[in-house]
Amino acid sequence: MFGECLENVRTRTPLIHNITNYVTVNDVANILLACGGSPIMSDDIEEVEEITSICGGLNINIGTLNQRTIPAMFAAGKKAESLNHPILLDPVGAGASTLRTKTARDLADQIHFTVIRGNISEIKALVAGSGSTKGVDADVADAVTEENLNEAVAFAKAAAARYHTIVAITGAIDLVADGNHCYVIRNGRPEMGRITGTGCQLSGLLTAYLTANPGNELEAAAAAVSSMGLAGEIAWSNMAPTDGNSTYRNRIIDAIYQMDAETLNRGAKYELR
Amino acid sequence: MFGECLENVRTRTPLIHNITNYVTVNDVANILLACGGSPIMSDDIEEVEEITSICGGLNINIGTLNQRTIPAMFAAGKKAESLNHPILLDPVGAGASTLRTKTARDLADQIHFTVIRGNISEIKALVAGSGSTKGVDADVADAVTEENLNEAVAFAKAAAARYHTIVAITGAIDLVADGNHCYVIRNGRPEMGRITGTGCQLSGLLTAYLTANPGNELEAAAAAVSSMGLAGEIAWSNMAPTDGNSTYRNRIIDAIYQMDAETLNRGAKYELR
Amino acid sequence: MFGECLENVRTRTPLIHNITNYVTVNDVANILLACGGSPIMSDDIEEVEEITSICGGLNINIGTLNQRTIPAMFAAGKKAESLNHPILLDPVGAGASTLRTKTARDLADQIHFTVIRGNISEIKALVAGSGSTKGVDADVADAVTEENLNEAVAFAKAAAARYHTIVAITGAIDLVADGNHCYVIRNGRPEMGRITGTGCQLSGLLTAYLTANPGNELEAAAAAVSSMGLAGEIAWSNMAPTDGNSTYRNRIIDAIYQMDAETLNRGAKYELR
Repeated sequence: MFGECLENVRTRTPLIHNITNYVTVNDVANILLACGGSPIMSDDIEEVEEITSICGGLNINIGTLNQRTIPAMFAAGKKAESLNHPILLDPVGAGASTLRTKTARDLADQIHFTVIRGNISEIKALVAGSGSTKGVDADVADAVTEENLNEAVAFAKAAAARYHTIVAITGAIDLVADGNHCYVIRNGRPEMGRITGTGCQLSGLLTAYLTANPGNELEAAAAAVSSMGLAGEIAWSNMAPTDGNSTYRNRIIDAIYQMDAETLNRGAKYELR
Repeated sequence: MFGECLENVRTRTPLIHNITNYVTVNDVANILLACGGSPIMSDDIEEVEEITSICGGLNINIGTLNQRTIPAMFAAGKKAESLNHPILLDPVGAGASTLRTKTARDLADQIHFTVIRGNISEIKALVAGSGSTKGVDADVADAVTEENLNEAVAFAKAAAARYHTIVAITGAIDLVADGNHCYVIRNGRPEMGRITGTGCQLSGLLTAYLTANPGNELEAAAAAVSSMGLAGEIAWSNMAPTDGNSTYRNRIIDAIYQMDAETLNRGAKYELR
Repeated sequence: MFGECLENVRTRTPLIHNITNYVTVNDVANILLACGGSPIMSDDIEEVEEITSICGGLNINIGTLNQRTIPAMFAAGKKAESLNHPILLDPVGAGASTLRTKTARDLADQIHFTVIRGNISEIKALVAGSGSTKGVDADVADAVTEENLNEAVAFAKAAAARYHTIVAITGAIDLVADGNHCYVIRNGRPEMGRITGTGCQLSGLLTAYLTANPGNELEAAAAAVSSMGLAGEIAWSNMAPTDGNSTYRNRIIDAIYQMDAETLNRGAKYELR
């Protein structure tokens, strides 16, 4: 049950090392604290191996990658892999520039990630080596819908098999797949796309779930994705008529803070294919 | 009418490339999403030309400029100019250090900006090459008031003519001028100055307005400035007695999210000189 | 009285130069504005000496230190010292990596800080040259409690004497000590630890209090620490049942914005040892 994965985060307080972008970093830190984890941000090549060694999991997000931080991503990733820590890759904007696509592919080729999480355009760019990512958002033509769901599930499984990882593709319908099984998750609200960084926040949260649930990574990843979508639903139900995306951002993090196992078990909407 | 400029942002969803400071970057991203635009942040020299090429407009903000990002500002600016994209310069803290004043002046000299937006002290420092900017806030002695308005309007027009641009000077009274005409805008609340980054947010918003309203840049700039001030008024009217500047920040972004053309047309307070 | 220290911040509007981490920088800026100060963030070696010269105080926070910003911290610190500006060191994560411990120690050895503020694990790591800091949070084994309070007070005074500074150790019980006296402060809420950056925010706030209260640094530091804890108490009393740590963050900054001298004098809970 997803609720048990959530409880494990609360009781085990996983310490997560984040090399992440400066746009949404504060929200990533607060959602990690909200779910019961503990964040540390560090991106200098001189210390990332040491920092990742004292942590339980590593979250690499290329949202504002640069020449200084890219080598730190590789160094931290390789160290975390040698320690058997769970590692997540968020290939923000893969497909939008050669640097992003190449960095994401090189990371995925050289490091064994536990989970790769992105929108459908980013994951396609990662697999194909090129893409039509619209900035940091998915191309509309790429969206996962009820109509193309079978095809999308097959793609997610193939991408996961390609990298021996779990692939989480998030959007209107979320897919969390390894090479054999795929959770199809229908939590969430379209308005979440009007907030910057709900994807980045999910990547942080997901890393905490992985770290607190060793040996149960696929379900833990699905639980994290479902909890984020459910938080979006709960937060939306708490919105006043004058509230907009900034308040919605706060209420989503608040909903993660307040969520318990029973709420997640009751609210999770998913099927396994 | 300003409302039509707002509607164009909502229907055209302009993708805006931001090279901006790490202090207020999250709010800039969220206000761009709130108004109907889509933000991407990228500041590495290896990718800024490619990123700006897939975008519709470019927002350059020197708030936390450094040796790594300054060359990226020039490269992105020149690329965006070659593509005829609208480009905005926010010379944060020009006048407060030699590096800021010089970088702002070099950018304005080498790149044709569509709009330069700052407080009165920053614009004076840009034009004069030195200034009395008090950190990132305007010097009180510089403030635009009803008493010195004629002089300030003349200064704004002259500064615009000097750089063949539109100059937006924001403060208690906002001025949006090209070489010939100047919108004098009286929306806003003094309490907006107690929030970090309302100027940075406006620069992001303004770039979206420019990008969605080609050929109508002066009115689009004035509409953006007016909408930000009006959002400050609406947000203030929604404040509870225990609310302070942090909640006010959220409510302003929320008000941009909720604003429609009719609200802007009804609430805009301006004259054309 | 603490209230007078608060009033001095409001009337003197100290301009504070911050070299701080990109995780919590926005909250630091907003809390400085909330208390009546004015923030500027600048971390490039080319301008930090000039920026710190136009400011009244300097806040150095090593939370996301890197090869580019570390030299800027030293340069700004030495310049501020030569100008007799108050300078604060926040040794975030000292004890968590060699780079952090060494940088914090080198800064404390080479620059005369007015205040060094951290959690107990960070201050221990600073003094001892090694530590058991759990990421950026204090090790549970280190916590200041009623049981070990005498020992903790003695440690705080000794650490202050060692560096000829004021040491502020914040946690469940806060200690603010010079070599001879120690304020023991019992304001605050445990839930503040579930928000990222309440420590960073306090460091910014504290620098403003120091700058606005020359010659009265120990009391000013204690007043700042007490006001932050009291803001946490007031903010908590304003929480709705669905609110979580993100809203709590906003309400704490709001409470600083709304706080007056009388509220602080009435709510401060401290003794002098």
